[in-house]
Amino acid sequence: MVKDIGFKSLESVDLAIEKIMQRLKVLGVETVSIYKCFGRVLAKDIISPVDVPEFDRSAVDGFALKAEDTFGASQMNPAILKLVGKVEIGEIPKCSLKEGEAIRVFTGSAIPEGANAVVMLEHVKEMDGFIQIFKSVAPYKNVIRKGEDLKKGEVILRRGTILEPQDSGLLASLGIRHVEVYKKPKVAVISTGDELLPLEESKVPGKIYNSNAPMLCNALEELGFPVFHLGIAKDRTVEIEEKLLRALEYDAIIFTGGTSVGGKDLVPEVVSRYGEIVFHGVALRPGMPTAFGIVRGKPVFMLPGTPTATFLSFYTFVVPALFRMMNVKIVERKWSKKEGILRSRIASEIGIRSLVRVSWQDGEVYPLKSGSGVLSTLVKANAILQISENLEGREAGERVEVILLRNLTEVFE
Amino acid sequence: MVKDIGFKSLESVDLAIEKIMQRLKVLGVETVSIYKCFGRVLAKDIISPVDVPEFDRSAVDGFALKAEDTFGASQMNPAILKLVGKVEIGEIPKCSLKEGEAIRVFTGSAIPEGANAVVMLEHVKEMDGFIQIFKSVAPYKNVIRKGEDLKKGEVILRRGTILEPQDSGLLASLGIRHVEVYKKPKVAVISTGDELLPLEESKVPGKIYNSNAPMLCNALEELGFPVFHLGIAKDRTVEIEEKLLRALEYDAIIFTGGTSVGGKDLVPEVVSRYGEIVFHGVALRPGMPTAFGIVRGKPVFMLPGTPTATFLSFYTFVVPALFRMMNVKIVERKWSKKEGILRSRIASEIGIRSLVRVSWQDGEVYPLKSGSGVLSTLVKANAILQISENLEGREAGERVEVILLRNLTEVFE
Repeated sequence: MVKDIGFKSLESVDLAIEKIMQRLKVLGVETVSIYKCFGRVLAKDIISPVDVPEFDRSAVDGFALKAEDTFGASQMNPAILKLVGKVEIGEIPKCSLKEGEAIRVFTGSAIPEGANAVVMLEHVKEMDGFIQIFKSVAPYKNVIRKGEDLKKGEVILRRGTILEPQDSGLLASLGIRHVEVYKKPKVAVISTGDELLPLEESKVPGKIYNSNAPMLCNALEELGFPVFHLGIAKDRTVEIEEKLLRALEYDAIIFTGGTSVGGKDLVPEVVSRYGEIVFHGVALRPGMPTAFGIVRGKPVFMLPGTPTATFLSFYTFVVPALFRMMNVKIVERKWSKKEGILRSRIASEIGIRSLVRVSWQDGEVYPLKSGSGVLSTLVKANAILQISENLEGREAGERVEVILLRNLTEVFE
Repeated sequence: MVKDIGFKSLESVDLAIEKIMQRLKVLGVETVSIYKCFGRVLAKDIISPVDVPEFDRSAVDGFALKAEDTFGASQMNPAILKLVGKVEIGEIPKCSLKEGEAIRVFTGSAIPEGANAVVMLEHVKEMDGFIQIFKSVAPYKNVIRKGEDLKKGEVILRRGTILEPQDSGLLASLGIRHVEVYKKPKVAVISTGDELLPLEESKVPGKIYNSNAPMLCNALEELGFPVFHLGIAKDRTVEIEEKLLRALEYDAIIFTGGTSVGGKDLVPEVVSRYGEIVFHGVALRPGMPTAFGIVRGKPVFMLPGTPTATFLSFYTFVVPALFRMMNVKIVERKWSKKEGILRSRIASEIGIRSLVRVSWQDGEVYPLKSGSGVLSTLVKANAILQISENLEGREAGERVEVILLRNLTEVFE
């Protein structure tokens, strides 16, 4: 039997959370600049408006050429190509390349028509308007192909994604300047208790400073929610009513204190007068005297007044509810370390630390193709696998540890 | 042998980080309100200015009495005490309690002189100015003792602590309104590259939108650092110089692009002209063409221009450096799950979920005394151990998982 400290019955924590989630919905959608979009929740899938890259680009500094012209080249018998110009970065190639010709390109240069590979600067001998190449080059070697990164019409970020810095980079590369995201709930915080002294006032014997308000203000701001502290209500119905009615202009309301079943615990009574109590009393310790209600469509969280209970009840009930109002449940936290079985071999070079973009899904780790300029891999990947300097790689089937690069989420609506 | 893509030698990642750390120091100290202190790094130990609580307080609603008056009480032979008044919350008791007397108190009420225990409301029968108590009460039962939470002169938060919401609650309870923290570095971001188009402009064929700037702006803001984007410098010495000189008014400078060893990679050359290159080229993939320098005392991070390399190099080198400028190294991240051996038994009640404040240290888990009103335990604890509803507790020696409530840090200076 559960001891109920005066409560008729205690809601289980999971059921209490479920009841909260069922009673909430998203607030609406707004548009934000991609310069300030981190932590916001996408309200619409983002579709690539173009191929990325829009043209074949060089991945290295070197010479663009026809791969076929190098076939059979060797140290003894180099291919010799005529140097016919250069393509600066950001320039559109004017000429098209003919057989036996090469053109100087830079990392990011467009590849001229007719060329289908790039040989690196370091692997070439240049002299008198000609270059010598000592090894055959495979077609499309060192070329980032048109649409290789993203294809026009492809979904690049799904609704419900919590936007990360790398997402803003990808959006920028596509020329997308603004995104539609769910509105953040504005949160009103009300402290109750005859014993509470505002921090701004001088100490009075027998009174204690209000510690819940700064704690919740910091916690809400840290999570990115706008917070409005409406001050202290004494343990009198009229003061609690007045604060509640003022708070209704915000999207969510948090009371601390006055939620127990003592004679001075008036908050649930006032809330029930203007709306509905969904539950009062949960099987959580500390945090038992937590209550939740709805007043004129606004969620009202009634947290116990003792600061440790306030704190733990806030993270248990209020935080998931505020994310629910942005349509997401966070399933795994960004920067978490996760284990998984590597599904294909990754090669690495001794002496170099490799940061491999991988996709982690339920204990499986899939390496992504990782062209160095290919920003979309940082968005398609959700984790990084670090390979230390003393390893030549990791084998398929090995158990590896990865670090998540983003919060993993589920949507409600 | 490490392939160096044109670099004379590559610095190992760890040595590169160490070299950065050695060249940086803290920026200075400023004072902030505890209402907006989350994420800031304490620059001075905080000492408790008072005993907390400053008087013996009741932990429950009930009756304060002399424990001795209840000794031997039973269901058949209850102790009967005379009710002599009440102490409201926030009120200073005027009377002192005599033998055979009890006084009504509330959660948080000061305990009057002469009383040394509180019996809960629910465990008492009240009638005609007397109360009946059916079980003996131990001395100091349900009493939070003066100084129990914190003793005057005790160090409550150490220099180098990254302040959390719960810390602001504790500071408020002590009447501390402001704290001294290390200044945050203001960061200038400069993008370089002839191929770059500012996001605000219309698309030009052959050019690509600047994706590194929004990515770094979001990343820096998410971490709480003020960021100033100084725009794009073309691959010309004079433009890079002009941006570098303007950027010297900030505390840290990030260049992206122009750090390789190609003909257009001018950033390290310009930096070396005005200051010193500490390293150029690291054994990291992606991220090899990363360089670090100091110009007029200001750290200059030269990140490769390809966005994935920028991103990974930023988190590998720049983020630890910016925290170094606030005198901390983050050793473990807040909200991480850690395992450890529980060092003493924790009892819990079937049907109730318990959130137990614990201290996690190198794989050992120590439960803290957890009086419900005792805010300091949330600060002394660094983690929470959840005990699910179907368990009666956890045994000493068991392997348990905890969630960190704060970043664990080390200080440099």
